[in-house]
Amino acid sequence: MKRLNRKPAKIGIAGLGTVGSSTARILLSKPQNATLTAVSARTKGKDRGFSEEGLVWYDDPIELAKDPDIDIFAELIGGDEGPALESVKIALANGKHVVTANKALLAKHGMALAKLAEENGVALRFEAAIAGGIPIVKALREGLKANTITRVIGILNGTCNYMLTRMGDEGMAFDECLKIAQDLGYAEADPTFDIGGFDTAHKLSLLSSLAFGHETAAESVLVEGIEAITSDDIKTAKNLGYKIKLLGIARQTENGIEQRVHPTLIPENSAIARVDGVLNAVGVEGDAVGSVMLVGPGAGGDATASAVVGDIFDITYGDETPVYGFAQQEMTPYEAAKAVSHEGGFYISISVKDETGVFAAIAQEMAEKNISLKSIMQNKNDNTVVNNDSGLQKIVLITHNCIESTLTEAISNLSKHAFIVGNPQVIRIENLS
Amino acid sequence: MKRLNRKPAKIGIAGLGTVGSSTARILLSKPQNATLTAVSARTKGKDRGFSEEGLVWYDDPIELAKDPDIDIFAELIGGDEGPALESVKIALANGKHVVTANKALLAKHGMALAKLAEENGVALRFEAAIAGGIPIVKALREGLKANTITRVIGILNGTCNYMLTRMGDEGMAFDECLKIAQDLGYAEADPTFDIGGFDTAHKLSLLSSLAFGHETAAESVLVEGIEAITSDDIKTAKNLGYKIKLLGIARQTENGIEQRVHPTLIPENSAIARVDGVLNAVGVEGDAVGSVMLVGPGAGGDATASAVVGDIFDITYGDETPVYGFAQQEMTPYEAAKAVSHEGGFYISISVKDETGVFAAIAQEMAEKNISLKSIMQNKNDNTVVNNDSGLQKIVLITHNCIESTLTEAISNLSKHAFIVGNPQVIRIENLS
Repeated sequence: MKRLNRKPAKIGIAGLGTVGSSTARILLSKPQNATLTAVSARTKGKDRGFSEEGLVWYDDPIELAKDPDIDIFAELIGGDEGPALESVKIALANGKHVVTANKALLAKHGMALAKLAEENGVALRFEAAIAGGIPIVKALREGLKANTITRVIGILNGTCNYMLTRMGDEGMAFDECLKIAQDLGYAEADPTFDIGGFDTAHKLSLLSSLAFGHETAAESVLVEGIEAITSDDIKTAKNLGYKIKLLGIARQTENGIEQRVHPTLIPENSAIARVDGVLNAVGVEGDAVGSVMLVGPGAGGDATASAVVGDIFDITYGDETPVYGFAQQEMTPYEAAKAVSHEGGFYISISVKDETGVFAAIAQEMAEKNISLKSIMQNKNDNTVVNNDSGLQKIVLITHNCIESTLTEAISNLSKHAFIVGNPQVIRIENLS
Repeated sequence: MKRLNRKPAKIGIAGLGTVGSSTARILLSKPQNATLTAVSARTKGKDRGFSEEGLVWYDDPIELAKDPDIDIFAELIGGDEGPALESVKIALANGKHVVTANKALLAKHGMALAKLAEENGVALRFEAAIAGGIPIVKALREGLKANTITRVIGILNGTCNYMLTRMGDEGMAFDECLKIAQDLGYAEADPTFDIGGFDTAHKLSLLSSLAFGHETAAESVLVEGIEAITSDDIKTAKNLGYKIKLLGIARQTENGIEQRVHPTLIPENSAIARVDGVLNAVGVEGDAVGSVMLVGPGAGGDATASAVVGDIFDITYGDETPVYGFAQQEMTPYEAAKAVSHEGGFYISISVKDETGVFAAIAQEMAEKNISLKSIMQNKNDNTVVNNDSGLQKIVLITHNCIESTLTEAISNLSKHAFIVGNPQVIRIENLS
């Protein structure tokens, strides 16, 4: 790999938004072995908390990526095509190390870019792309490398975690909570990418590659967002000893790697259940280490820049760890576990007409499919529309481990009964040690 | 630094106890770019879960350290002098990279050994010396390197955390709990090193050097153990919204670095308060990242070996990060903050004769020293010897932030009152965001 020989490395930053500006400020105030020499952004002369004086300015990030005077190119533009992709390709092809915070870019083009980096003997680092300031990429790629990883579980989207926390704490409705999150700047005007689980899926696909050494396959992640979760679900789950979190889960199963993003019931006394608000967390299970968890800020300019600059300093020390911790030619194609094979318990909330024999009929349908129940109860929460609408009741089931496809059949059979109103709410339960 | 040029590195392990044997098993089953070729221990031919066949055997670790065929020397003997120290010195002087899990050795000789490593252009890695399988050394040395660290807080001793957890959960007496911990193998026959806080102090002194770049000064750590903590204290603290943990705390203050190990009251809803049982945790606060926490197993053969092998794999990738993340010549002598300068609240439990005017007298003594009280209450716990002994009551004070030396004076004045029985129990409170 290209070595920097202890001369201060020259850094170029493309993109001076929140993260880019924070990165520039940190590099200028803590030069260590890395010197910021050039930047690129759309508008020159804006107040970004640092002086542009003495820095070479480029309007076009492609030109910065070609600058023969730059050793490390920091791509902080964003987007999975266009200038971000082009400039990273050109930087790598020109023998520059690249640091990026761009999860969308990597989820889509990570493999090709890693190959390009390896061919050119340069580093491609992306600590900032997953869980902001938490050094989880380094932990998986290096610190826990002695382990055969069995599962990675992450709270990877602060918007969702913030909303689920407040909905649970305050019994707030989803739409009301989303509005507040938007007002506070925790959610975008178009929140689909966050609350639909797609942001989590991008990050999870990278974690899965780091953990299991397979090619990134973001499009293969099973994705369900939090849109259908009500504060009533959260309250009911709490009464049963669970919290609801949007988790990204990558797991080694007998027949392949599972990659799933969905709202999940987890025991409320588990460590990851206690990670609330905008915080992120990633738990890693490995054969030697058992279980470790990292918790911290998943977003924010300074926290994300902490990861970007950590990567930059790292490169100056000549670390030749491969991009994903596995040499590119050793990375295997992603082989998805069959989606139907997921085993785990389920939370099922069913609106029913208040008739006698409903419990018995529900229990019977589950028994027909050999699904054993941990509990079946009338939901005692009194603050839901359904319960206030006289004549309707909500029944909540918790199942023991069962095959997802079998459960789907049972639910389908159940839905044929005339006492069922609407679609049952089904939320997966994840077993945590 | 000496580069291994992608040839598989040859590893020698000195010491085949629990960690050494686990390390050997992992290296033999997951060779990657590192091949175990030689071992050293007292007794050959014991069943250690791997075959010694094909490995060069040394009775004397010094001879292993001299073996010209070894690239990386793993010191897993233990002890801060004798064969551990000698073999590490010889290995470094002979141009071998060294990996160790030996916190006592590093707390005493870390600076000299780091210098020796740097002079010989080799690595000295010690992830396993602090918090077992948790990759906190790498996080501080590399991942969070962009930060100016302001505080490191750790639960670093599983024995103490296990005991405090069980005493709290079950109202168990200290001696009874220690006996159980010993029976379970969580505590040594002579538990002084663990429960006296010395093990935590060794680890804290290394964390402090990694965080702040000063020379390791384990002897300067303020150390108080958990011997005086009663389940009654834990219960009272819980009623006030706190947990009691043995914490190692290294903090940047205005007049130097504080290094303290002592039982500490922390808000029970803080993340680190929720780390129970034998688990370890380290929280790091930095100017860019804010706050991150790593949680995991602090001991155990496989978990510790996970860290040892992670270091070994790392070295094979040629990372030239300095031993403590700072070049040796840049590390500054340790300048202790004045012990008296610690600001923080205090928990004070006082046994008093049941007389009128006691509250007023106590409050008056505190007011005299300008110590403001958050609460003063009669301890309502009914399961303590003191309370059962008629005529005695326990009064518990919680102070706001105050200077420790001022508090000591107030306590001294208070003790002159005839209604005070025995010595007040004083436990520091740590402010956590």
